[in-house]
Amino acid sequence: MNYSLAPIGVVHSVFRERFGIPRQPLLVPEAKARLELLAPYSCIEAVAGLEAFSHLWLTFIFHKTMRDQWQPQVRPPRLGGNRRVGVFASRSPFRPNPIGLSVVVLDGISHQQGKLELLLSGIDLLDGTPVLDIKPYIPYADSIPEARSGYAAEPPQVSKEVRFSETAEAQLRQRDDGVELRGLIVKLLECDPRPAYKNRSQSDRIYGMRLYDFDLKWRVVGDEVEVVELAI
Amino acid sequence: MNYSLAPIGVVHSVFRERFGIPRQPLLVPEAKARLELLAPYSCIEAVAGLEAFSHLWLTFIFHKTMRDQWQPQVRPPRLGGNRRVGVFASRSPFRPNPIGLSVVVLDGISHQQGKLELLLSGIDLLDGTPVLDIKPYIPYADSIPEARSGYAAEPPQVSKEVRFSETAEAQLRQRDDGVELRGLIVKLLECDPRPAYKNRSQSDRIYGMRLYDFDLKWRVVGDEVEVVELAI
Repeated sequence: MNYSLAPIGVVHSVFRERFGIPRQPLLVPEAKARLELLAPYSCIEAVAGLEAFSHLWLTFIFHKTMRDQWQPQVRPPRLGGNRRVGVFASRSPFRPNPIGLSVVVLDGISHQQGKLELLLSGIDLLDGTPVLDIKPYIPYADSIPEARSGYAAEPPQVSKEVRFSETAEAQLRQRDDGVELRGLIVKLLECDPRPAYKNRSQSDRIYGMRLYDFDLKWRVVGDEVEVVELAI
Repeated sequence: MNYSLAPIGVVHSVFRERFGIPRQPLLVPEAKARLELLAPYSCIEAVAGLEAFSHLWLTFIFHKTMRDQWQPQVRPPRLGGNRRVGVFASRSPFRPNPIGLSVVVLDGISHQQGKLELLLSGIDLLDGTPVLDIKPYIPYADSIPEARSGYAAEPPQVSKEVRFSETAEAQLRQRDDGVELRGLIVKLLECDPRPAYKNRSQSDRIYGMRLYDFDLKWRVVGDEVEVVELAI
């Protein structure tokens, strides 16, 4: 039997493509999003009491990575991209049911001109992500610090120093959100989001990552990541 | 746009009806279940590496409480059953999308005669529950002990002493699983699972709860719960 589920909301996020998105939520507190509730769920009654919770669970659809076929194994980036594990032993977006699960910080609730939005941070969600459910995070049930956690026991490590080219610095200075954006870019790049399985020796390669309304251009030089420019 | 999702597994659980099920998973470690993976997902490759994780997230369907209509507010038992909160500020099974989320303990993996089952404990799942997804629990991402948690800050409190009638004691002695079952019954009843909104003064009322293949009959007498019998 199949279950037909309709989104109750949609995410408006700074992340406009999959590449570079933090691999787990909360790693980058500067990463913000709005979750717009869709009618008929966009009524303030349905979120009454939610402001008493600091964190939420979002159940969502990996809408950009849906596939007709499934594979029993995946190669998690945490294993260097060349070891396989069972798809159910991973959080890969390539799953039999393309369901994602993220804990996010609830910063506030905005209700203006008939639009109801949850203001979120610490997100790892692509712009346009359809959300199926919102639940409060309940520490006594959900927080298990002693859980044993195979190959993902430690968070991804900061491995690079991030510096900005003169062009990038000038572009940041021209933006109202420049200071905040600088902080977000450092957090995104200091963990080195290059695909693990690609040849990393090619140090002159410039990577691009869609963020807000621009392409973030950067390259790796030794232990440093240089932000080249914010290309429009 | 609707998403059509098919179960990847089904739960075989000691809980045969909703009444009496622990209100959050992990509260009753004695509560066990098997999660049978359904074809084509019942292949050992798909769970390879899972044994390195002590806890799992299950995303499932509240199959016994699906409704055609949704209500924006619910009355959580934790608030005494007479205060309303928004459905998204609750974990009520009556939700726009009937999606449940539980963390469970993975005790082992059984692969026999072509049947692949995950052996689970600490569950709050009804027998027959369709499971949409399995993900590993990752403490660095999922464990947030400092999260602020509105009306559900503390786990449900033990409020009753549980004792067994002579009939019930004799019935337990006759079962191979008697000792374990006794432990499970104590854990289930010591938190007083009576509906909060019903009149609790009626102390002679006998409650029934479907567990395994019997009806667990019990009543409340002052600060005690008396297990009357295990009725077949």
